[in-house]
Formats: sequence, structure tokens, C-alpha cells
Amino acid sequence: MKVKDQNYKNKTIDSFSRQSVMKMLSAKLMIHEPGAISISFPFQAEYTQQNGYIHAGIVTTILDSACGYAAFTLMPPNLDVLTVEFKVNLLRPAKGEEFTAKGKVLKAGKVISVVEGIVYSSDYGEGKPVASMTATIMAIDSSKEQ
Amino acid sequence: MKVKDQNYKNKTIDSFSRQSVMKMLSAKLMIHEPGAISISFPFQAEYTQQNGYIHAGIVTTILDSACGYAAFTLMPPNLDVLTVEFKVNLLRPAKGEEFTAKGKVLKAGKVISVVEGIVYSSDYGEGKPVASMTATIMAIDSSKEQ
Amino acid sequence: MKVKDQNYKNKTIDSFSRQSVMKMLSAKLMIHEPGAISISFPFQAEYTQQNGYIHAGIVTTILDSACGYAAFTLMPPNLDVLTVEFKVNLLRPAKGEEFTAKGKVLKAGKVISVVEGIVYSSDYGEGKPVASMTATIMAIDSSKEQ
Amino acid sequence: MKVKDQNYKNKTIDSFSRQSVMKMLSAKLMIHEPGAISISFPFQAEYTQQNGYIHAGIVTTILDSACGYAAFTLMPPNLDVLTVEFKVNLLRPAKGEEFTAKGKVLKAGKVISVVEGIVYSSDYGEGKPVASMTATIMAIDSSKEQ
Repeated sequence: MKVKDQNYKNKTIDSFSRQSVMKMLSAKLMIHEPGAISISFPFQAEYTQQNGYIHAGIVTTILDSACGYAAFTLMPPNLDVLTVEFKVNLLRPAKGEEFTAKGKVLKAGKVISVVEGIVYSSDYGEGKPVASMTATIMAIDSSKEQ
Repeated sequence: MKVKDQNYKNKTIDSFSRQSVMKMLSAKLMIHEPGAISISFPFQAEYTQQNGYIHAGIVTTILDSACGYAAFTLMPPNLDVLTVEFKVNLLRPAKGEEFTAKGKVLKAGKVISVVEGIVYSSDYGEGKPVASMTATIMAIDSSKEQ
Repeated sequence: MKVKDQNYKNKTIDSFSRQSVMKMLSAKLMIHEPGAISISFPFQAEYTQQNGYIHAGIVTTILDSACGYAAFTLMPPNLDVLTVEFKVNLLRPAKGEEFTAKGKVLKAGKVISVVEGIVYSSDYGEGKPVASMTATIMAIDSSKEQ
Repeated sequence: MKVKDQNYKNKTIDSFSRQSVMKMLSAKLMIHEPGAISISFPFQAEYTQQNGYIHAGIVTTILDSACGYAAFTLMPPNLDVLTVEFKVNLLRPAKGEEFTAKGKVLKAGKVISVVEGIVYSSDYGEGKPVASMTATIMAIDSSKEQ
């Protein structure tokens, strides 16, 4: 997809590094191309639900950042992104040593972008996703108070 | 709503206590009535996104547990709950000292229940919710392998 | 909620009358207050699915217009509304002589509004809704090409 | 995907032919393979909204049937499908001479299937979808009263 900021990689890495929650989850960012990124994180028992699987909200945390940063790589220099809403389908128990969330922009609009995310686990592989997300992301002028 | 298990309070408290992620978030459960519960948690800088607000995924973590346990209070003795999917709208920046997620069952079905969740912050009050969720919850026989 | 256009009733009635699909469904608009409207329509066998219930997409048609026009009543004079996305939960079979969809604004934002819709049937009454919607609506300048 | 009923084509065509709303919309079914189908329909001015585009609810009607029948092709002989919920993102104005909705099963479960749908228009082509859906579909025993 069309890049509007040549500095897109650096600004994405920089913003990601300021998300404290990504550090807590030991998450790592990979930028594949403009509009497509991945975030990986290892299994951590602290973030499980009652059956020992990663909590759906934590899976969502990684998916939301993956979708948001996928959209952010396509923003012009002065614009930030804000998640308006998302929907998540939980497809399989979130078990495995490592999880990878992929975010890919379906439509990049001036104001609204729609991004699709999917999470894989090292246990199941890419044929059997753990969860899917559709996220609506809004471009905002970060220099102005909303 | 109609209780199918007189032990609904104890079993809900017990399951909640086994969610490690709730301990990490210092979250507290309140059972209001069958089909309606709340979960509160304090602001924690470790779980913020790039602007210093609580990450949308962490807000979702609390909302998902609130919706899931609201449905769980209405389950018969042998059934557990599984979140099939949810949708979250992010209405305001998640700032404030304390957050409370309320989950309330909209429809309790034999197999599928639909639950509505909403998160308030001590900063805005109940007139200005931080986020809303609609969750689809499935009853499952916990004694069987899915 | 706060009205930004004293002409809100007339402009809503006028826009509704230009939705051909509402005529096809014999739908009627009721404006309750700024931010809250209803649309009613009778059962019609032409719009059913394989079991003789009103098709979920037709239920959605009425819900979407109800949510959109609820948001439209709160728009300033120069702005139109555009549905960005919605999520619908189907709670009961859509049977009954008459259906009423209520749309109510949860948050009215400058750019993004979030609206909740619910459909009742004359068969079940208001205690047992047929379907629920959460819709994300965007304000757009109708004088400009998008 | 794995077929559980050798009669899957006939039963899908048969059920589709009983959806009155599909006749109203002059919709045509194409079964591509187990788990993947399309439904096409022509532009009809009767089903437009205030700006002359096909109403989002009508786009949803076709998407819902596409997702439901995609899931239905994978059902065993005795099971029918029921849409539990769906989420739709509206990506572009629904204009064009002809629209095609494709439904493809993402996960076929014993009880719950998740299906993705997308609508294209003859005006934009497949690179620029008009709308996307994620639908949660439940298998039900059609011989029993729900």
C-alpha cells in the first residue's frame, strides 16, 4: 500500500516502544511492509484465565496493537491513530509457547481505516488461527486536543 | 434472572480467583445479582499504551471477564462458559484512578448467552463510559473435552 | 441530548422519506427526542428466510436506519451521517405481526457517534428483544465529495 | 474443507430457493466448493438509501445469506444453521450494476462456525470491496424445537 511518510518504520518502532503494556507482555514488533506488521509474544502464566490459557483480553491487546500499528505505517507525518472499535472471534484455546498477531490493512481511508488481524500459536500453526479481529481505526491530528 | 445453581456466588468467586491475569491487574469482583456483576481495577502505568492511557486490550480483558462471569452466574451446576466473540467500542481515553466494568446478561439462552458490558472511570463517572462491549458466550460441558 | 440544529425533526423526516427501501418495507419513523427514534414495520412474507421468519438482513436494515437517524437528529445543520460499521446479535426468531426498532445514541462525538439499537416484536414484547445492534456512525460534510 | 453430507449442493440450493427475500432481490447462488459460496444480485433502486446507494441492510442481507450458506455446505445431514451474530464494515458506497457477496468458512466447528464475507461491486472490482462481514453461525438440530 502507498506510504505517505518515508519515516514510517522509525515512527512505528518508536511509538511501539512507548507502549508499557508491550514490555509487560515481552512483545516484539516486526514491520513487514507498509500496511502489514506482526507482533509476537511468549506464553506467560501470569496472563492466563481459569483454565491456564492466555486470557482473551490479552490476545486482544496484541491484536489491537497489531491492527493499530499496521494502520499507523500508512499515516502521513502529522497524523496518529486511534482505535474506534474492534470485534474479536475466539477460534481456539490460546495455548502454545509463542503467539504471533498479524495486522493487515483492508482499507486505508483518509479518516477511517479498516484493519484485519489474526493470531497464530506455535502449537497450532498458521492453518488453525487462535483468534481474528476486525478493527476500525481513525486518523487523528495528534497536535490537537480531541 | 433465574438462577439454576444455588452455589452460583461461590463458584463464580472461585473461578475468578483462578484467573491469574486478574491478580496481575489487581482486579476485584463484585456479584450484584444473578446475571449482573462488576469488576474494578486501579490505574497501573505498566498497562498503558503510548499516550499513557490504559491499553484498549486491558480494558477489554476486564470487560470480557465481567461479561463471562455475568453469564456464569446463570449457568446450571455442570456447565462452564466460553467466550465465542465480542465487540468493543472505545468511547473515551481510559484515564482515571479506578475503572469499573459492569457485565449484565441481555439474553440467557441454553447454549448461547448475550451479555453487555460497560466500563466507567473514576475520572468521568457513569454518565460518560470509557468503553462498551457486546459478548456472545457459549455454555459448555466442562467435564468433556471440546 | 443537546440539539445542534433546531430543524432536526424536519430534516430527519425528509431524509427518511428519501430511503426507497423504507417504503418497500412499509416502515414508519417516530422521533422521540434528540438522539432517540423508532422505526416500525409490519411482517411481510416477501422478506423472510427459509423458515418463514423475517431475514436477519432485513431486521438489520431497520436497525441501521434507526441507529443512523438517531445520530442524525444530533448533527449540526451542515453535516450528514455515514454508517462506518455495526454488529448485530440475533436473539430470537423474527416472527410477529409488527416489529419496532429503537435507536438511542450512547455517545455523540464530533466525528464518531456510537448508537445502540434494539428490535422488539409484537409477539414477544419489550422484555424479549429480537435483535440488538451497536453502530459506529461518522459525521460527514455532505457538501463535499468523500 | 471436509464435507459431511454428500448431498451438500442440493440441500443448499433447496434452502436458498426457500428464502423469499432472495427472490425479492433477484439474487443468484453459486456454490464454489464446500465452505465457499457466492451470491450475486443486481442494483435495484427500490432498495436504496437516501443517496441512491444500496442500503447497508440490504448489503448485509446478501452477506448474511452468503456466510450462512457457506457454513451450511459443511453441515452433516441432520443439522441446520442459525446466525448468532455478525459484524459488518461498510467500506465504500454500494453503487454499481451488480454486486457479489462471497462467503468463506474460516473455522468449521461442531457447534460454532466462523465465516468471513465480502461484497464486491461491478463498479470497483475485487480490489476495492464494498463491505466485509464476520459471522458467527451455530449448528442446530432442525428436527427439534429450539
